[in-house]
Amino acid sequence: MNLNKNLQEYFDELSSSSPTPGGGNVAALCGALASSLGAMVCNLTIGKKKYADVEQEMISLKNKLEIYQKEFFELAQKDNEAFDKVMEAFKLPKESDEEKEVRNSKIEEATINAAEVPSDVMHKCYELLPLLKTIADKGNKNSLSDAGVAIALTRTSVQGAYLNVLINCSSLNNQTIAEEIRKRANIIFEEIDKGTAQMLEIITKSFLPA
Amino acid sequence: MNLNKNLQEYFDELSSSSPTPGGGNVAALCGALASSLGAMVCNLTIGKKKYADVEQEMISLKNKLEIYQKEFFELAQKDNEAFDKVMEAFKLPKESDEEKEVRNSKIEEATINAAEVPSDVMHKCYELLPLLKTIADKGNKNSLSDAGVAIALTRTSVQGAYLNVLINCSSLNNQTIAEEIRKRANIIFEEIDKGTAQMLEIITKSFLPA
Repeated sequence: MNLNKNLQEYFDELSSSSPTPGGGNVAALCGALASSLGAMVCNLTIGKKKYADVEQEMISLKNKLEIYQKEFFELAQKDNEAFDKVMEAFKLPKESDEEKEVRNSKIEEATINAAEVPSDVMHKCYELLPLLKTIADKGNKNSLSDAGVAIALTRTSVQGAYLNVLINCSSLNNQTIAEEIRKRANIIFEEIDKGTAQMLEIITKSFLPA
Repeated sequence: MNLNKNLQEYFDELSSSSPTPGGGNVAALCGALASSLGAMVCNLTIGKKKYADVEQEMISLKNKLEIYQKEFFELAQKDNEAFDKVMEAFKLPKESDEEKEVRNSKIEEATINAAEVPSDVMHKCYELLPLLKTIADKGNKNSLSDAGVAIALTRTSVQGAYLNVLINCSSLNNQTIAEEIRKRANIIFEEIDKGTAQMLEIITKSFLPA
């Protein structure tokens, strides 16, 4: 994803009817935002006397989150490319039977790829979440709400990616492949949805009077 | 919020230990992303023969969402400013009893303000959600996953803002005011959390084989 683009340009392109960026791109972006906020909490923990015993752990987590952030950006870019490929396949000629067959096969192939990119976003979130949990548990308590927002963003990243997996699978001809992709996605979705909800409930309660 | 900033700069500042932007800013940004994605679905519906009967409604929704997007950006900016004011108040001198009193009162005032900005984000999301529901119901079906991602982002915007309301309320001395702010926030949180969960379930089911 082109990170030299300014925020105004990104939002203008998002709102527009241009094919990309769309919801799949935003889902991956949420993963990058979650990683970035998590890294912020690490940075607000590192160097503080009170948290000296978790300093090394926070440095290591921060380094991992910086890598994850980049990987989410790559996935956001891949999502744009995958969608463009589907659009290209739809534009192929469909006069002769042979052309129709080539076109259908290219659409199918591009759609499988367009389902696999958000599957990868879901997997990355699955790796990200335990890191954010540790940060919420052990990081600077003054930034616990930030860790919570990062966890909520992970939930949305997974939810958004899941919807993109499903819409692509729903238009596949090969329903055996579709079912396989869906099944794997469903397992991650259920686990992250439940896990994030629990974590958010604990964080919420910690802010309420006893 | 400075929209001339490029994405890389925004993410670098977010990850850093600089006080802003933080989780409250990102929560408001999620509202802007939701508005923008909603406007995209309107743009992909307007001008399509199949959706001619909802054309006027989509134009009107799009115009509203463009205003909402700007309002969320303003709230994101206000969140930065509110947090900066809390930080400034903490830096006030605290030698004499009089100084301590002034400082405490300034911290209290700034913290109430820092709880009110995310409350406003929650209210804006409360206005946004029915618009997104209409877009999901009546907009271009090919973009239903995008409408779903917008709804998921609204949920996260509310969740993130709610955590920011709570963390600020938890540090107020005046627990009567804190309880009032919390009560109102809690009502919106419960309603949006339930409402978005239901909408997302319906969208998810629509993509699954019958």
